Amino acid sequence: MKTVGVAILGLGVVGSGTYKILRDHREFYKQTQGVDLSVECVLEINKQKALDLGIEESKVSDNIAEIVSNPNVDIVVEVIGGVEPARSFVLAALHSGKSVVTSNKELFCKHWHELERAAKRTNAGLFFEASCVGGVPIIRTLIDGMQANVITNLTGIINGTTNYILTRMAREGSNYADILKDAQALGYAEANPAADVEGYDATYKLSILSSLAFHTKVPLDKIYREGIADLKTCDIAYGNELGYTLKLLAIGKNGKDGIEVRVHPAFIRKDHPLASVNDSFNAVYLKGDSVGDIMLYGRGAGDLPTGSAIVSDVIYAATHNDVKYATFKNTQQAEKGVKFITDFRSRYFIRFTAKDKAGVLAKVAGIFAKYNISIIDLIQKGEDCENIPIILITHETSEFSVRRALEKIGELEDVVSVDSMIRVEG
Amino acid sequence: MKTVGVAILGLGVVGSGTYKILRDHREFYKQTQGVDLSVECVLEINKQKALDLGIEESKVSDNIAEIVSNPNVDIVVEVIGGVEPARSFVLAALHSGKSVVTSNKELFCKHWHELERAAKRTNAGLFFEASCVGGVPIIRTLIDGMQANVITNLTGIINGTTNYILTRMAREGSNYADILKDAQALGYAEANPAADVEGYDATYKLSILSSLAFHTKVPLDKIYREGIADLKTCDIAYGNELGYTLKLLAIGKNGKDGIEVRVHPAFIRKDHPLASVNDSFNAVYLKGDSVGDIMLYGRGAGDLPTGSAIVSDVIYAATHNDVKYATFKNTQQAEKGVKFITDFRSRYFIRFTAKDKAGVLAKVAGIFAKYNISIIDLIQKGEDCENIPIILITHETSEFSVRRALEKIGELEDVVSVDSMIRVEG
Repeated sequence: MKTVGVAILGLGVVGSGTYKILRDHREFYKQTQGVDLSVECVLEINKQKALDLGIEESKVSDNIAEIVSNPNVDIVVEVIGGVEPARSFVLAALHSGKSVVTSNKELFCKHWHELERAAKRTNAGLFFEASCVGGVPIIRTLIDGMQANVITNLTGIINGTTNYILTRMAREGSNYADILKDAQALGYAEANPAADVEGYDATYKLSILSSLAFHTKVPLDKIYREGIADLKTCDIAYGNELGYTLKLLAIGKNGKDGIEVRVHPAFIRKDHPLASVNDSFNAVYLKGDSVGDIMLYGRGAGDLPTGSAIVSDVIYAATHNDVKYATFKNTQQAEKGVKFITDFRSRYFIRFTAKDKAGVLAKVAGIFAKYNISIIDLIQKGEDCENIPIILITHETSEFSVRRALEKIGELEDVVSVDSMIRVEG
Repeated sequence: MKTVGVAILGLGVVGSGTYKILRDHREFYKQTQGVDLSVECVLEINKQKALDLGIEESKVSDNIAEIVSNPNVDIVVEVIGGVEPARSFVLAALHSGKSVVTSNKELFCKHWHELERAAKRTNAGLFFEASCVGGVPIIRTLIDGMQANVITNLTGIINGTTNYILTRMAREGSNYADILKDAQALGYAEANPAADVEGYDATYKLSILSSLAFHTKVPLDKIYREGIADLKTCDIAYGNELGYTLKLLAIGKNGKDGIEVRVHPAFIRKDHPLASVNDSFNAVYLKGDSVGDIMLYGRGAGDLPTGSAIVSDVIYAATHNDVKYATFKNTQQAEKGVKFITDFRSRYFIRFTAKDKAGVLAKVAGIFAKYNISIIDLIQKGEDCENIPIILITHETSEFSVRRALEKIGELEDVVSVDSMIRVEG
């Protein structure tokens, strides 16, 4: 039986999970995959972490050169995260002809081409299933399951932290700041939560997923981004009354006019399959021209779910000789002809506060009409007070028109404030 | 660029869909997959069908020998269905060294080993993604996405016809026979609906899926099977009151005591992701020891969704040289040590009709207690009549105990009839 040596760079949450899976399933993989996966060494400065996992001291190193020159290592697993030193370590491994399996979405979406070039030079493999949506095999599905399709739409809940926070805000009616604090205490959010709650993490993943889905590199800077920090609990409740659930969506569309990529909070109808993706679960909804609608659902993060994706890539790398790159085949960079749409179209949930005076609604309606925006639903919350909240949902219209209309509405004498503008999708 | 020749055996619904996808995407596959897929010939007795699709007359044949001896054909797509002549045709193709892509679940689950042996003899490929759950890449996921996991549970809604009928029975409150008639008129059910409504189709797919998930051949005759023809609309309504949705489930479990495989109607909680899989949609819910819960959702049938799975396999076969068999690596037949569980455990929804007399419930409760069955929920529908329906839901217990208890209950003087026993899962 073929023995394949694995090195793990970094024993953080995902690295430890990966080690445990490889350790506990070694016999199982021999039986079911016909390959003996042996962890030959780990790169970890904190030696105690390795010893606690039962790794022999002789297999622990703090020197990447030692690892990439080890002839027993065939596959290098990079689970350090961030760009440096992960990038240099991955390049060193590829230069030495080792195949690389990585969970590093930031590194991958920022340096995809550099890594791919390095891999091709030495005929090394490069795999990154674990970079997106944890244990859900979305990359394998895009490459080997839906490749017969022209994919036109991709809509994902691809960040577990924000989905956990939004699920609890909806369930408990509590505000963002309180739930975030609790999520941090429980380990669902980082001490510095910016990467998650401001949507950066989702843009990294959307860059990778939409590049694969649309067969062209979608650079990070083409992705419109809004986080969840400014969301108000009352808007979640108002949306609920109207039949909608609020989610942080990652949206990719590929149409005749170009590619549209954005990450922002959005309402979706409660009967949409994505609406019941709750807590830290993730899901990706895809539309292919032949297959129609498909959804993949599962855990998007965590030591063992992400480790599952890494080890699946390790097994794939260990048992396939002629398929080295799990990337797109045809395009070296964003094609020159690709157009990215900035003035996208959506429906909109809008909330503003007006003085309780006759004629306000007529003026507001007039402004919407001027910008060709038609309204589906309008609720005036008739509370007994001077200022009343007004909520409306528009038909599909352009983002720029809505923004201009809201500016004008904000200038009306009897409008106290324009409070919320949330897109409505799906 | 490599040109790969394809032959399609049979231009029925799936064959025609496959041809259309290959025809309309030829340039797209050249660009994105680096391969030119050319349909070299089709096997079809009804020549007009081929001409209507725009296939040149010279490419239409009614002779399998002509096709398998054609040096321009590399991949043979079998979409005839049924065992013969599909089996002979597939064997002929494999003997000639052609790779085979099939959507034929019945053939595959009944003759898997024979086909696999034939493929290995000539080093031909053998692919069957389209045999299960249409366009949903469940086979690819089991083989290349979740292979790092010991899979313990597989629960699927894998037959579109029955799911369509059950969805409409629940939504409209109509009875089985009326909805079936309508489904037949609309093309959702066959004129002879037995394969679907009696659960055979689902057992074929469950045999294939559980064999892959549990790494051992699960023969058809080990699968317990019940169809949907006897279901009563009132039970769907009673279940709904209690928070459950009724589905035809395919269930596979792999535990310490053995493998358990069954296809039967079952209630699942409304908040389970499978509960919102409606109409002709399909889904498979899997539990892996590392990845946790995963669900794949999509269209399980239809010309283009199933064609999507076939063409994905064709592309895979055309672009991979060293991976010939998309089957399990280790087991030639059901391992001798594998135990199959027949007395499985479940919760149970039970409905019986009793005379409205004091003491009936006490007697019934006594019988359940004797068989160690404890009850979660009991509803007595207090309608003003002589005979009243009683509904109860049990805690988890063994199938044999429930059957014995119901026999005894049926023998009670004051029990008019035992009407329904439906398992409760998930």
